Amino acid sequence: MKAMAAVLCAFRRPLVIEEIEVPPLAPGQVLVAVEAAGVCGSDVHMWSGQDPRTPLPMILGHEGIGRVQEIAGEKRDVYGERVAPGDRILWERGVTCGRCFYCAVLHEPALCPSRWVYGIHRSLEVPPHLNGAYASHIVLDASTPLIPLAEDEDPATFVAASCSGATAAHGFALSPAPLGGTVVVMGPGPLGAFSVALAKAQGAEHIVVIGGTAERLALCAGLGATLLLNRHEMEEGQRLEAVYALTHGRGADLVVEASGSIAAAREALLLVRAGGAVSLVGLGAPVGEMALTPFETLVRKNVRVQGVWVSDLRHTLQALSLIRRQPAAFAALVDRRFNLAEATEALAAVRGREVMKAVLEPRREQD
Amino acid sequence: MKAMAAVLCAFRRPLVIEEIEVPPLAPGQVLVAVEAAGVCGSDVHMWSGQDPRTPLPMILGHEGIGRVQEIAGEKRDVYGERVAPGDRILWERGVTCGRCFYCAVLHEPALCPSRWVYGIHRSLEVPPHLNGAYASHIVLDASTPLIPLAEDEDPATFVAASCSGATAAHGFALSPAPLGGTVVVMGPGPLGAFSVALAKAQGAEHIVVIGGTAERLALCAGLGATLLLNRHEMEEGQRLEAVYALTHGRGADLVVEASGSIAAAREALLLVRAGGAVSLVGLGAPVGEMALTPFETLVRKNVRVQGVWVSDLRHTLQALSLIRRQPAAFAALVDRRFNLAEATEALAAVRGREVMKAVLEPRREQD
Amino acid sequence: MKAMAAVLCAFRRPLVIEEIEVPPLAPGQVLVAVEAAGVCGSDVHMWSGQDPRTPLPMILGHEGIGRVQEIAGEKRDVYGERVAPGDRILWERGVTCGRCFYCAVLHEPALCPSRWVYGIHRSLEVPPHLNGAYASHIVLDASTPLIPLAEDEDPATFVAASCSGATAAHGFALSPAPLGGTVVVMGPGPLGAFSVALAKAQGAEHIVVIGGTAERLALCAGLGATLLLNRHEMEEGQRLEAVYALTHGRGADLVVEASGSIAAAREALLLVRAGGAVSLVGLGAPVGEMALTPFETLVRKNVRVQGVWVSDLRHTLQALSLIRRQPAAFAALVDRRFNLAEATEALAAVRGREVMKAVLEPRREQD
Amino acid sequence: MKAMAAVLCAFRRPLVIEEIEVPPLAPGQVLVAVEAAGVCGSDVHMWSGQDPRTPLPMILGHEGIGRVQEIAGEKRDVYGERVAPGDRILWERGVTCGRCFYCAVLHEPALCPSRWVYGIHRSLEVPPHLNGAYASHIVLDASTPLIPLAEDEDPATFVAASCSGATAAHGFALSPAPLGGTVVVMGPGPLGAFSVALAKAQGAEHIVVIGGTAERLALCAGLGATLLLNRHEMEEGQRLEAVYALTHGRGADLVVEASGSIAAAREALLLVRAGGAVSLVGLGAPVGEMALTPFETLVRKNVRVQGVWVSDLRHTLQALSLIRRQPAAFAALVDRRFNLAEATEALAAVRGREVMKAVLEPRREQD
Repeated sequence: MKAMAAVLCAFRRPLVIEEIEVPPLAPGQVLVAVEAAGVCGSDVHMWSGQDPRTPLPMILGHEGIGRVQEIAGEKRDVYGERVAPGDRILWERGVTCGRCFYCAVLHEPALCPSRWVYGIHRSLEVPPHLNGAYASHIVLDASTPLIPLAEDEDPATFVAASCSGATAAHGFALSPAPLGGTVVVMGPGPLGAFSVALAKAQGAEHIVVIGGTAERLALCAGLGATLLLNRHEMEEGQRLEAVYALTHGRGADLVVEASGSIAAAREALLLVRAGGAVSLVGLGAPVGEMALTPFETLVRKNVRVQGVWVSDLRHTLQALSLIRRQPAAFAALVDRRFNLAEATEALAAVRGREVMKAVLEPRREQD
Repeated sequence: MKAMAAVLCAFRRPLVIEEIEVPPLAPGQVLVAVEAAGVCGSDVHMWSGQDPRTPLPMILGHEGIGRVQEIAGEKRDVYGERVAPGDRILWERGVTCGRCFYCAVLHEPALCPSRWVYGIHRSLEVPPHLNGAYASHIVLDASTPLIPLAEDEDPATFVAASCSGATAAHGFALSPAPLGGTVVVMGPGPLGAFSVALAKAQGAEHIVVIGGTAERLALCAGLGATLLLNRHEMEEGQRLEAVYALTHGRGADLVVEASGSIAAAREALLLVRAGGAVSLVGLGAPVGEMALTPFETLVRKNVRVQGVWVSDLRHTLQALSLIRRQPAAFAALVDRRFNLAEATEALAAVRGREVMKAVLEPRREQD
Repeated sequence: MKAMAAVLCAFRRPLVIEEIEVPPLAPGQVLVAVEAAGVCGSDVHMWSGQDPRTPLPMILGHEGIGRVQEIAGEKRDVYGERVAPGDRILWERGVTCGRCFYCAVLHEPALCPSRWVYGIHRSLEVPPHLNGAYASHIVLDASTPLIPLAEDEDPATFVAASCSGATAAHGFALSPAPLGGTVVVMGPGPLGAFSVALAKAQGAEHIVVIGGTAERLALCAGLGATLLLNRHEMEEGQRLEAVYALTHGRGADLVVEASGSIAAAREALLLVRAGGAVSLVGLGAPVGEMALTPFETLVRKNVRVQGVWVSDLRHTLQALSLIRRQPAAFAALVDRRFNLAEATEALAAVRGREVMKAVLEPRREQD
Repeated sequence: MKAMAAVLCAFRRPLVIEEIEVPPLAPGQVLVAVEAAGVCGSDVHMWSGQDPRTPLPMILGHEGIGRVQEIAGEKRDVYGERVAPGDRILWERGVTCGRCFYCAVLHEPALCPSRWVYGIHRSLEVPPHLNGAYASHIVLDASTPLIPLAEDEDPATFVAASCSGATAAHGFALSPAPLGGTVVVMGPGPLGAFSVALAKAQGAEHIVVIGGTAERLALCAGLGATLLLNRHEMEEGQRLEAVYALTHGRGADLVVEASGSIAAAREALLLVRAGGAVSLVGLGAPVGEMALTPFETLVRKNVRVQGVWVSDLRHTLQALSLIRRQPAAFAALVDRRFNLAEATEALAAVRGREVMKAVLEPRREQD
């Protein structure tokens, strides 16, 4: 049997559609027919050659949902139910060892030193070769947790749960929104959108989003944001004033930096109230140095800053639950769907910030 | 009746011993005969004119223990027991409003905007004038919590509980030491010494202290430190290596910055393990800017940084309990006692780092 | 000036409408013109003489909202804003000392030994006499926290925040609903209705309500319940089966007993999953003994049972925020409004379970 | 190669010393020469036929320490270090699946439905046959976590870390002792002794032990207990009075039921303060019904009751760390050591409560 994949062979060049022989499955492996593969900002980094780890040639795609096609042996999903061919599943993108100090003692598998991710760490040459979701099929490792999805759950709507949704959920697990409190989310991209939904699901009363794109801000309003601040229309001082006015002069209980910019992280330290928390989920790649005044911004204000690195299975399940609370608002985030042949176009659309969330649907008919 | 006080009249000049009329007490006020007044690093800052808020002329002294001499009305201690003249008490140094959002809703009175502290915020001119502990007597506000001490508890040994002890306890309340874990304390002064005792009392197995003074490091060993790293004898790289070796290459679960230096705060970010916490208790005054790489030190390592500002009554009680666990080791910290006339000498000894902890005993006979 | 009050003079007899002279205010006191007084189940207990503490004659009414009419001195609300005559406020029903170990050290004012509640602990004879909300006016103690409400916020809809809402919020503060988890609420009365809203606001995915009244269950559905189990239509075994089916055989993460019955508490222990929590908020009055098998229900299942006693200001604010999330669904709970002359009728309606939530509106025109 | 084992062939009959062929190791298995096997109270239950699951014939022994003799493949300990023949190790007694909802999502492996324990769940007939520690050798499953011990760490002193120590640690993980607070431990057996050490390691100031054996109480004093109450010398009322006197009338912050008796659990509910916690670690086997008054003991007092079921690897490591804090005091608990031939005698000594902690040392020379 043959699979089709969009292969990254050279940086900044179009992906190459290749036919790849599906290997026989090793015990515990699962062959999945991909229904949706999310196009993530970090895919663009890899495509551009900005991520030094990228093992060419490779199949990108760490966010995926599909239908089980074949299983080598018996398999159960995370709820303990038997998995059968034809089932729709989402899989945990990170594979961890389960035995190291981080996995087995600290219960922080996101920090497992041998964690690897589909569509990021394994080249096409490493068996079973079908290691990324930009393909008609993917082969999942025996230890990958499988999460069932319902027939009426749209794969493109749910696929981001496995990366940006889960990472945002990790952030809120480490720095929860207080019930009735005020949360500011900086950056209305996919991480920010999930952060809005999380703030709402944890009971925040005021959810402020700061961003530069009116369309993205509007999508956040659909998810529960109560105040939108467009940074092209307001100076930093005005934004601070707006948040302080909402909170009787105190500042926000929690500020989530989801934009990836150092300027936003610095502004977060001004927006947060004394005794509050700043959650750094957006700075997922090297951005150089940041200067801060530790006495004034951290100590005198008794502020906590929490760095957030990737996620684990708990967070993926939480992200799915978030989407189930308001599927229509999440469906609206997926503003463009592509077939496999259009994978390069999809990457370009994300690079150009033309879309909120691009999704590949490899089984989609070509136009 | 007259009280004697060491009054700060001009910056960098000797304190002036003055006789002050004890005013009649307002309802709820308590007149206390001071037995011990701790000399804190921030007293030196005020004396030197480095703290712009210092309201001259004033009586310094925010750490104090004494005997109740007179009470205007009935009074109960924090345990609900009746307080009587002759009782030995320690008082909470900070006076808070009890009604603002920080006091009454968030239960973080350390952040009360109207918090004021004996020996720091009120000048000699503000009634009841006897507002600091560098004096034979102090008058306590009606709302100040009183904590009983036993007859056999040495005031000089316990007095630091009310400031450095409580602040260190606040730090460990916000960032606890894991049972069986590894804690690094940077800076073996009073805050660091209490931090060692806290790490031990919360069950840390390895307690590493980094400092530059052999005597101070030895005092920390007496309180429970298990590894002493003298920074005059080891480079930063060697210190990192020592901590990584203890922890099978992971780094410390918790690093407490108790020295007040930016260099130490930066080193803390290197010493902490992925998923660990850095507690900033030492940076209690403006130190300028600090540069850090947020991706590498915070996000990629999933690290939490917690600023710690002062403390509240809970922490004072915890600090007292710490001293009761090992009174001899804490008594050893008090390496010099002064009478009231020697207050300037005491400040100079602290400024010159000649002593670990200097304590004024106003009732002590002059030599 | 005169106020009108419905006075409880003898148990099980109609309340007597009396004219009472408004006393001059002591410093800090606030005179409020009552707009809404909630009729709570415990009012019925007091009326029936089942609560031995009831100090006859007295004015019932511990849930209240009104307009400030006069203030003796300057006053600020919990947000630090100046309160002025004409402002609409809700007040914290419990008055606590602020100084005891529970208030000042443990920060659990709900457990303050000298806590007293408007409309419960003070008789009409204790100055300032107007001590309950079943009246045209109430006089608030100087230490009572005041919470502002907006002009467009219906007092009858918000009034339950101060008792059943706050108590339910206290329960969820002690035993939170996990994001994406399953919560069962037993008893669809006011405590149960707020518990549904809390489960939703904390991110539960499945919210099951067990009750015996179709109308009440339907109101819970309006607040976010996802599965309604009518105990008149299903046996206990079927209810267990339904919850186990939802949770892949595990049971609920959290079960909230909000009905006040021992049978429900016992069922809660069967419905909860291993490692889960049972929150007892409904058993607010003596109900005798309950038998349980500690090995099978608690130890072998690693279950936590949390008793919940009243609430404090934090929880009142959370309850208000809950209502602001879905005011229409909460307004629907108030199925009957009464004027002051109808207070006895209101008590009878609550006793007879004819209404979900009865509210007195003392300023309402008599029909 | 042959191993020697003490086999339980018939209930209440002497164990039979048998020679058993050591099977060839499957991949990942580890053959260990047992140095110490703890004799636990539940071993006596199994021997007596009171545990219906006991799969005869079988080798008892779920607490064990030994030296690695052979490894099928490469193996790393929990710290990631290579394990080699000759290394002294303690192993986690419970084997869990790592994939179910409890293991992989909730991170509560103690509740894994397929958890099994060496020396409890597998008969002698199940390969690899050497499934318990009452033997010269045991074969460990590939997924069993291995924890290194030092050459100077006495196996008999450390062996209880793997069961009673870990279970007690699980209890304190779920219900921590507050720093400076008061903890009561009911029952001075091994669980109680570890609980005393945990209360001390978490910073309790007052640690009260209630028991009926002077020698056991004295051993608890050696571990940190500050007040010993002998229930043969004091009535329940006197014990309550003693605890209330210590706590200014409030009661204990935490009461740990470690005796396994319902009477103690009921007393625990009287000893705990309002807002405190009762931890049930001792009721590890069916004891029938317990009656309590939920309003008076749980709701009105806002009390939490936490059932504690077994433990996981985290807790085992914490228990080891506890022993390292005070090895001499823990060594004193081991008041009798037996060789393999004396296994029946050891069980009888535990049944008769003649010893605090009996340990088999299979390599010990017979006397």
